[in-house]
Amino acid sequence: MLPHTSATPNDSRTLTPRADGDAAGRMARSAAATEGAMLRTGEVRAWLDERARANVFQVDRVPFDALDGWSFQGGTGNLVHRSGKFFTVEGLSVTAVDGDRRRQWQQPIIKQPEVGILGLLVKEFDGVPHFLMQAKMEPGNPNLLQLSPTVQATRSNYTGVHRGAAVKYIEYFTRAGRGRVLADVLQSEHGSWFHRKSNRNMIVEAVGEVPLLDDFCWLTLGQINQLLHQDNVVNMDSRTVLSCVPLAGGTEARLSDTALLSWFCGERSRHTVTAERVPLNGITRWKRGPDAIEHDEGRYFRVVAVAVRAGNREVTGWTQPLFEPVGRGVAAFLWRTIGGVPHVLAHARVEGGFLDTVELGPTVQYTPENYRHLPAEDRPPYLDAVLDADPSRIRYEAVHSEEGGRFLNAESRYLVIEADESQAPLDPPPGYQWVTPGQLTSLVPHGHYLNVQARTLLACLHAMGEQG
Amino acid sequence: MLPHTSATPNDSRTLTPRADGDAAGRMARSAAATEGAMLRTGEVRAWLDERARANVFQVDRVPFDALDGWSFQGGTGNLVHRSGKFFTVEGLSVTAVDGDRRRQWQQPIIKQPEVGILGLLVKEFDGVPHFLMQAKMEPGNPNLLQLSPTVQATRSNYTGVHRGAAVKYIEYFTRAGRGRVLADVLQSEHGSWFHRKSNRNMIVEAVGEVPLLDDFCWLTLGQINQLLHQDNVVNMDSRTVLSCVPLAGGTEARLSDTALLSWFCGERSRHTVTAERVPLNGITRWKRGPDAIEHDEGRYFRVVAVAVRAGNREVTGWTQPLFEPVGRGVAAFLWRTIGGVPHVLAHARVEGGFLDTVELGPTVQYTPENYRHLPAEDRPPYLDAVLDADPSRIRYEAVHSEEGGRFLNAESRYLVIEADESQAPLDPPPGYQWVTPGQLTSLVPHGHYLNVQARTLLACLHAMGEQG
Repeated sequence: MLPHTSATPNDSRTLTPRADGDAAGRMARSAAATEGAMLRTGEVRAWLDERARANVFQVDRVPFDALDGWSFQGGTGNLVHRSGKFFTVEGLSVTAVDGDRRRQWQQPIIKQPEVGILGLLVKEFDGVPHFLMQAKMEPGNPNLLQLSPTVQATRSNYTGVHRGAAVKYIEYFTRAGRGRVLADVLQSEHGSWFHRKSNRNMIVEAVGEVPLLDDFCWLTLGQINQLLHQDNVVNMDSRTVLSCVPLAGGTEARLSDTALLSWFCGERSRHTVTAERVPLNGITRWKRGPDAIEHDEGRYFRVVAVAVRAGNREVTGWTQPLFEPVGRGVAAFLWRTIGGVPHVLAHARVEGGFLDTVELGPTVQYTPENYRHLPAEDRPPYLDAVLDADPSRIRYEAVHSEEGGRFLNAESRYLVIEADESQAPLDPPPGYQWVTPGQLTSLVPHGHYLNVQARTLLACLHAMGEQG
Repeated sequence: MLPHTSATPNDSRTLTPRADGDAAGRMARSAAATEGAMLRTGEVRAWLDERARANVFQVDRVPFDALDGWSFQGGTGNLVHRSGKFFTVEGLSVTAVDGDRRRQWQQPIIKQPEVGILGLLVKEFDGVPHFLMQAKMEPGNPNLLQLSPTVQATRSNYTGVHRGAAVKYIEYFTRAGRGRVLADVLQSEHGSWFHRKSNRNMIVEAVGEVPLLDDFCWLTLGQINQLLHQDNVVNMDSRTVLSCVPLAGGTEARLSDTALLSWFCGERSRHTVTAERVPLNGITRWKRGPDAIEHDEGRYFRVVAVAVRAGNREVTGWTQPLFEPVGRGVAAFLWRTIGGVPHVLAHARVEGGFLDTVELGPTVQYTPENYRHLPAEDRPPYLDAVLDADPSRIRYEAVHSEEGGRFLNAESRYLVIEADESQAPLDPPPGYQWVTPGQLTSLVPHGHYLNVQARTLLACLHAMGEQG
């Protein structure tokens, strides 16, 4: 792929202001527009239903030996595609040391070294920036069809390894001169399921007319924010790109930005995480059956296979492996105002597949089924403050799906919950810190600070109008 | 180690300004002070000589079998210490793909998973911030004694694995309440010699009186900047921390900051680098003798062993392996003004040991000896513009040593060279980009953007008065 140099001034003698002065104001204008120039917000679900009727989708679980092009490699037992592309399912052996606390485990992991593009195209209508959203089927979504970014493509997709149709609108994200970049950052994907996977999160404002194709619609940020309050409408790839929308933040916080970076640096330094890829058939506590690879106590997730029939995907029929979590996850920020300024309690979290030890995650991120067997002292901190929250303290709640191209029925309940000093003191324990949404917004242009669940919640905070 | 939370407000109800408003101005005041409250700049070299006489140091090359506590592990042939601490020398197998260009090689590499601390303590005298520098012996430095940061310690050092004396002043960097953090960031070390090594670069302003110990002196930034123009005075660990001094930058540049991040993201995305640790005794083209592990054509570097006798180190005698480069390196930024604003030409550079594909390096970073055998078209770009530079175009030049605790006689000639359109066009080829020193300064609070050579050159640009 060509480097994206569209922002290079045409006059080679000119300078550019370093700060993109008007971007935040224009994004705020889009967020304030609860209706747009095209589809009305209330019509989006009907439009999605109509797109679903216009395209026939069917997804069926199949045994591994019904996979076409995929097989378990001799020796390693790794699950691979005959092209050597797409992704592989391998084993991961993790040792995480934090002071005297040492954890070790093995698990299946998805290895996908290619960097994909998650791209949102922006264009002003009537002076208000609109975002080009796609009605996209993904086999793992419980309702199949959700709103994706304009472009959601692995490199295999857009270089044609799967021999399908060209990825629509990809040229705005790969060719110079087609747009102005508003955000472009490599962000981590799920560190518990992917080994060091990054995607390029891009927001590009189009230069010139943009044709509107079937399955696409223009929405304002205000419209998308309303849809973010509904279950399973805005897909994960949209949510992570939306978290990168450049918005202005406040000027005060619990910690200065330098002190926050210092705290984060200390958290990253005090953890030592060793994650080695190992053969899938050698990992302890996991066993392979004809239909699934499962943990011996049925915890965490299963590796399964599906057959897909679809009319509007790049290819019209395929089989593939998916990871299926064993239960619905919970991802919640505890929320307080400090001196009148909203803060959330971030957690420096170890996941085996992270590029570097920890990233900032929600206060609580877990799947209840995985912890039922543990004694109370081994359950995650702040769990009770989330699970027992009085409904009056729930400031945001919606069920969203994780990436439906790799994960089957991977739903999480995303929450923002108001807490008080007894539940979440202003001086938090090691590993936790109070940050403003504005501080998270200023970290997100740089990769590997916020994990994908925290980025979803940041998009939700923006949707709540909290840019603080 | 405790997270460094000293910047937490004492009154738990108060907020802090997010921006550290006065830090840049105070650093500029220190940079403007060409003499300080203590040692005069012209006396520093004499003071270093005096410290060298006060402490007896001797470093001798020894064969591997004279190493005490170090041995080649059965099976892998990896060079390890019996404590399992410090570092190991292992093999690395690298495949780097950039479009149609595919490079593969194997090499010895230092694996040192611990995060060390490179810490500079700051204190105002007569209203001017001074930095506490140390006269420190490192076995690999050609002149043994150079100016190091206040603290330069591996975790093994300051947790006492080597059973030596306590690391002086370490409490300012590990305990809450001893200082105010001005910078704190995990930065990469040499990616060609270390596997994914990071050190914590910290600048902390002391609270209260600071005792002045032997081998330490307070200098202003202006004094240190003058010393940075001399050969082999300011050591690598000082230079990388100095690159993190928060200084104000200009408001205009060739690319906006967003466009620069987008270009960097594109560079990181288009490279695929696979670096696998392999047994040291299995790597191709390298052979082990009694005194050295060498490349079969004598290129790149040698792994050797030394015996050290010293009076003021944490332990008073030891042996250890070191990497010894085969020749003196060259690290140079080409420099131009664009619209009156100084810019340097950064190179998105692959090194096998980087955490993530590329970091920004100097325009030219290479060791001539390694390229003599190659045809002209395979020599690094911009080489001639550096090697053939008319003396009038050399804006900065000094010889500096790389980390003397791991590298033996690893000197590089650091240069900033003025170029014109014929030598370095404003529209550079893929992999290169014009950036202002101010843009580099704003990237350096985040890790893994600038490699260690670029950080030395950024400190040199600051020393030239170029913060642009």
